[in-house]
Amino acid sequence: MEKILASIITIGDELLIGQTVDTNSAWMGQKLNDAGVWVQRRVAVGDDKEAIIRALDEEARLSHIILITGGLGPTADDITKPVLCGYFGGKLVQDEPTLTRLMALFEARKLPVLERNVAQALVPDTATVLPNMRGTAPGMWFEKDGKIFVSMPGVPFEMKGLMEAEVIPRLQSRFTMPTLLHHTLITTGMGESFVAERIKDFENALPGHIKLAYLPSYGLLKLRLTSVSPEKTSAAAEMKTAFDALRSQLADIAVAEEDLPMGVILGKILLEKGLTAGTAESCTGGKIAGQITSVAGSSRYFKGSVVSYANETKMNLLGVKATTLEQYGAVSEQTVREMAEGALKALNVDCVMAVSGIMGPDGGSEEKPVGTVWIAAGGKDNIRTTLHRFRYDRARNTDMTVVAAMNELRKWLEL
Amino acid sequence: MEKILASIITIGDELLIGQTVDTNSAWMGQKLNDAGVWVQRRVAVGDDKEAIIRALDEEARLSHIILITGGLGPTADDITKPVLCGYFGGKLVQDEPTLTRLMALFEARKLPVLERNVAQALVPDTATVLPNMRGTAPGMWFEKDGKIFVSMPGVPFEMKGLMEAEVIPRLQSRFTMPTLLHHTLITTGMGESFVAERIKDFENALPGHIKLAYLPSYGLLKLRLTSVSPEKTSAAAEMKTAFDALRSQLADIAVAEEDLPMGVILGKILLEKGLTAGTAESCTGGKIAGQITSVAGSSRYFKGSVVSYANETKMNLLGVKATTLEQYGAVSEQTVREMAEGALKALNVDCVMAVSGIMGPDGGSEEKPVGTVWIAAGGKDNIRTTLHRFRYDRARNTDMTVVAAMNELRKWLEL
Repeated sequence: MEKILASIITIGDELLIGQTVDTNSAWMGQKLNDAGVWVQRRVAVGDDKEAIIRALDEEARLSHIILITGGLGPTADDITKPVLCGYFGGKLVQDEPTLTRLMALFEARKLPVLERNVAQALVPDTATVLPNMRGTAPGMWFEKDGKIFVSMPGVPFEMKGLMEAEVIPRLQSRFTMPTLLHHTLITTGMGESFVAERIKDFENALPGHIKLAYLPSYGLLKLRLTSVSPEKTSAAAEMKTAFDALRSQLADIAVAEEDLPMGVILGKILLEKGLTAGTAESCTGGKIAGQITSVAGSSRYFKGSVVSYANETKMNLLGVKATTLEQYGAVSEQTVREMAEGALKALNVDCVMAVSGIMGPDGGSEEKPVGTVWIAAGGKDNIRTTLHRFRYDRARNTDMTVVAAMNELRKWLEL
Repeated sequence: MEKILASIITIGDELLIGQTVDTNSAWMGQKLNDAGVWVQRRVAVGDDKEAIIRALDEEARLSHIILITGGLGPTADDITKPVLCGYFGGKLVQDEPTLTRLMALFEARKLPVLERNVAQALVPDTATVLPNMRGTAPGMWFEKDGKIFVSMPGVPFEMKGLMEAEVIPRLQSRFTMPTLLHHTLITTGMGESFVAERIKDFENALPGHIKLAYLPSYGLLKLRLTSVSPEKTSAAAEMKTAFDALRSQLADIAVAEEDLPMGVILGKILLEKGLTAGTAESCTGGKIAGQITSVAGSSRYFKGSVVSYANETKMNLLGVKATTLEQYGAVSEQTVREMAEGALKALNVDCVMAVSGIMGPDGGSEEKPVGTVWIAAGGKDNIRTTLHRFRYDRARNTDMTVVAAMNELRKWLEL
């Protein structure tokens, strides 16, 4: 069975000069994959007619489906629509439903409608218009030489709405999709090469259509099995066999059997055990709480956090003793333990994570270099502390600490 | 003068199925741009020999410089090195400095060195080896038919080290770079199309080699001027004239004259004024504090935060009255004002931001739909409250709230 192949083209100088990080492509890749479409290439080009046309030509040679995002805003830097109109032929005509929606949107916001806003309702008459319920620029579906091209705005919220309501369902009714299955095991505490060594025989024995990938991620290691198969039932059974074998060989280092963020993994355990949690954060500055609360429904188990960036705050809100700070310093086992004890009381929760460390670039010493982090995790009368030494820059040290703190509480909960 | 053109190729199935967001390309685009290199295309391909070779061929036709990241880890899913060796000719040989560094690294971590680790020190003898001081896989510099190809590991921290220490300096000594200048004005409170209408004449009068781009970003609008010129002094003067004209036309809505995150902008103002700040966060769950503390040196003006996700925490740590919560609800002007007052005292700071809102997907009502957010910003006896209504999903509503809260405190500080 033939794979259904897709290319993603993103348009915009802001992507090339690095002013914007492209999060759209990853999201689209996931959704297409779930639907059975294999994204084989992603290409970013600038706001440049020739570059856009070259990309359309190239990707059309390689893929069945070409998804295009970006370059549909109301201002003059946007050239995508005229280029598409030229590429697919036809002329720009007014799309009445889009205009009506657009007028209503501006009226609701009590804003006048400018000529350049009205122009957003112009579409090539060779396109099938896909209604954008979340913004002013509609999606456009073209077909040429048996290939499908879909153009969408680059605003993530609008692109996502169009993908879910229009693009994926239309693709599904158009193609017979193969079954693409992924199953990921998350592990902790063992390096990539050592894991590879341990499961060498397993890997060599995998059937040809199941691939294993190693994905290091913030101190964790994700092992992803991918299978491509025309037949859903047998593919699922085969994948289960492979995954079970993998898991049994790595049971001692397994964290989760799904590719979920650590905040979600931790939340599930807390919910299951009916426990509440909170954090006391120094060097992470609220980012642990931020990750936990980005999960919808986290208010069922998460009560809050004291971000004690200043020593004064550690003392006033968490009851850390001045003598502890003087004698051992803010980044010490003693301080982080008192932070945890203080947070248990202040937040009235069953368990906490507390962190204090030196993220860099400044603040390191010979004894406590940048990357030194103390983590405390636990509940009343039962707090465990661990010392971590990260070797990265400020941003990565912080991200590593956030995941490590949640992992320490996870370990404590699973004891 | 000819533009120096670059393409970035990223390798890895995890990018195509959306398991990883590509942040490397944006960072590389910024650095190359600063150095005068124009990134004209970014391409992501899977761990597939044919796809990699096709990308190398294509990009070599279009660009002077081809930068490649990813696919150099110690495990079996990495095929980049053999493919490069085949593409550029030569055979794999052991690089002694890399092997020595690698052995030292494993010794320091008290880990045995496996065969597959030693293999990381193998490089094609047609490559100039670029030492990776942050990891085990070295960078490799190839030249073919007058084009430069550089292969780097995909781990962001390692790639960044190689770019800064090796790749950028080598490119600078190799090419005479044109001057690429960007200057960005950040504005707030006026939509893209209305700004465009106001500065229409300015935009039409811009010289051909200066481009204006509109970049909406979390409720702000960034206006970026870009000029490409062979001559540094005149380019800078011309850019200054254009930027001054832009700024004077948008003085009433200008936020900043550099493309900086709001956390940095706010930090600068606080430092300048010698004031300390903190946050009281409900719906943002610590993310405002997280953004402020991601700035190195923020401990000079930021003391901490109370993340009061639960009502109980709002009462216990911030002194919000039970009657206020009962009468007006957690998402109300009254609650957010009491949160701000409580945070001023609890954190002992000069000014605060407090937020309470409904991020979704659940928790909305007819009166207070998802996206309703109350923000309080100010200092003792002088707190201003504002109501915001975002129309997005949970993640985007949260991001918008984080930026809006910092912007409200910025406005209060600049009164």
